Amino acid sequence: MTTMKITTDNIDDFATGATVLGTGGGGDPYIGKLMAEQAIEEHGPVELIDPREVPDDALVIPSAMLGAPTVMVEKIPRGTEALAAFESLETHLGQEAYATMSIEAGGLNSTVPIAVAAALDLPLVDADGMGRAFPEVQMVTLTMGGISATPMSIADEKGNSLFVDTVDNEYAEAFARVTSIEMGGACMIGTYALSGAEVREHAILDSMSLAHDIGESIRTAKDRSQDPVEAVLDLTDGYELFEGKIVDVQRRTEGGFAVGEATLEGLADCDGRQLTLNFQNEHLVARDSENGVLASTPDLITVLDSETGDPITTERLAYGHRVRVIGMPCSPKWRTDEGLDLVGPEYFNYSIDYEPIETLQNQIND
Amino acid sequence: MTTMKITTDNIDDFATGATVLGTGGGGDPYIGKLMAEQAIEEHGPVELIDPREVPDDALVIPSAMLGAPTVMVEKIPRGTEALAAFESLETHLGQEAYATMSIEAGGLNSTVPIAVAAALDLPLVDADGMGRAFPEVQMVTLTMGGISATPMSIADEKGNSLFVDTVDNEYAEAFARVTSIEMGGACMIGTYALSGAEVREHAILDSMSLAHDIGESIRTAKDRSQDPVEAVLDLTDGYELFEGKIVDVQRRTEGGFAVGEATLEGLADCDGRQLTLNFQNEHLVARDSENGVLASTPDLITVLDSETGDPITTERLAYGHRVRVIGMPCSPKWRTDEGLDLVGPEYFNYSIDYEPIETLQNQIND
Repeated sequence: MTTMKITTDNIDDFATGATVLGTGGGGDPYIGKLMAEQAIEEHGPVELIDPREVPDDALVIPSAMLGAPTVMVEKIPRGTEALAAFESLETHLGQEAYATMSIEAGGLNSTVPIAVAAALDLPLVDADGMGRAFPEVQMVTLTMGGISATPMSIADEKGNSLFVDTVDNEYAEAFARVTSIEMGGACMIGTYALSGAEVREHAILDSMSLAHDIGESIRTAKDRSQDPVEAVLDLTDGYELFEGKIVDVQRRTEGGFAVGEATLEGLADCDGRQLTLNFQNEHLVARDSENGVLASTPDLITVLDSETGDPITTERLAYGHRVRVIGMPCSPKWRTDEGLDLVGPEYFNYSIDYEPIETLQNQIND
Repeated sequence: MTTMKITTDNIDDFATGATVLGTGGGGDPYIGKLMAEQAIEEHGPVELIDPREVPDDALVIPSAMLGAPTVMVEKIPRGTEALAAFESLETHLGQEAYATMSIEAGGLNSTVPIAVAAALDLPLVDADGMGRAFPEVQMVTLTMGGISATPMSIADEKGNSLFVDTVDNEYAEAFARVTSIEMGGACMIGTYALSGAEVREHAILDSMSLAHDIGESIRTAKDRSQDPVEAVLDLTDGYELFEGKIVDVQRRTEGGFAVGEATLEGLADCDGRQLTLNFQNEHLVARDSENGVLASTPDLITVLDSETGDPITTERLAYGHRVRVIGMPCSPKWRTDEGLDLVGPEYFNYSIDYEPIETLQNQIND
């Protein structure tokens, strides 16, 4: 039973590691880090608490940014809108929040709740709703647990706010998405309020401390004369899928999402091969000219800088960048029929039968 | 000081007259009439009260449908969603509503509040926010009075609901519009909650009783051997602009609106002339091949059946229909600079300098 403090000393590690788990999405780590850092400087460190410690009936209110990450790079949150969304939901529920939580693992969406926690002197639960990032509201393991995304509060930096109550989580996505577009492409939300017991049963546990460990291992790999990419793979049971140079990126903001495709030419061991990455905020499918599908949603696909091991989000992919692409197994919760209905390749219109990354790697290595 | 009862006997007159003032928009009178009729049958008649009688600090909550009228013809409200929107706003404001009110004059939006009033045993204030119908939320004289469209409650027939708070009425329009689209093209709203004193100062007074008188005069014109169109012109200080046959209707649902253009070939005195009507839910500009602009927003333009004098909404315009087009002066509130900024031809992207219909008619008749 350990409790960890999130401080200005280790916030970088959280942001970096969460970006690795964010599989290209989940928002820009730099902006998220700045927000959290500023809040910690002002209000003090944040306690990261074990989900097993949260009382059964305690109220946990996750806080998140919703929108196209491409927009968030330019539309930096003021900070007040995240608090407004959180507090409006808390008031509506008429119960004091015991803690906040990340709804997804990602550079911005793991750090927004840290900023909220610092400002409101609340602990952060070491868990999230995906164990990675996904583009749509209903795409959390909580949906499979029957937990409603609403009441959901939405706020922007201008002072606009909405309160949403829906009959299912898909409608919550629909209303929140169009609202985010009218708010300039992104907004802050309070959503999926849940109890301590529900966190334990339906969320992905220990993902924030995993993010910290991943970030720390990338930062310290050099000192330990270790390859930073190998360090990440050790912590996540992952695989290196490809090493190469980005030769093309097609990217557009469509329906409130950053949608696109990146093409990589192989280097070193991958010389002569080509990799295609498809993304909608997050990387969804990695395909290789020689071996076909290397990994697909809901397994995690992340692009790392070849030299530093730092994760690169989809909106930062750029021509000429030398990168290594890794794949990591998702939570077993996503590999159920219900999970694949929510976030499998078919949902995103790819005619791919999902195969766990372990199976695909065994086939390639046979 | 007269008070009138709205009953199943005179509801038709209200619906017909409001549709005349609806200038082609404001929703289908048949659906609205059915809703109100059913509510009156179930709960009893509704008292139409003089706005001068409402106490200064009494709370008046207008109730309305928002969306594309073309959709409303097929997506008939259940009735419960209008009540849900009204009561959610009342609860939020923490004050019992004294009365409800129409936000615009129109076949559906003058009768929805009648249904709400009947179901909740509330009176209806003899006033509205436009004196006609307009397509967007901020287009009410109340906006010029500094009255906020929010808090606004939105509800659909499936059980989804939203609560909106915005920094201005244009944002209220933006969020409500995209929400209406996600709700299938239309939704019910509670909006522009205001005091009795504000009604008197900023709303258009006596428009419901005017609607009743217009409807009654059309219905009884035959008995009085009067031309029904002339009867309407007498009550509204209006002008007959054109008599003809509809030869073309271009109509599309775009951005949540019914947008289009109708072309008429002249008959009788108008033989040899052609009329073009542009609309966005409501008729906005009437142009004649001989005389140019005959009338434009914010003045009222309405299409009436040549024989019966019944108003025809834009979604019912059809090839071959013989019609008479009338124009009526709008409220002086709309003819101010501030009013024209909100609803003048320029707002709708027509490069027309607004001229009052009286001026245009004088020029033509000179």
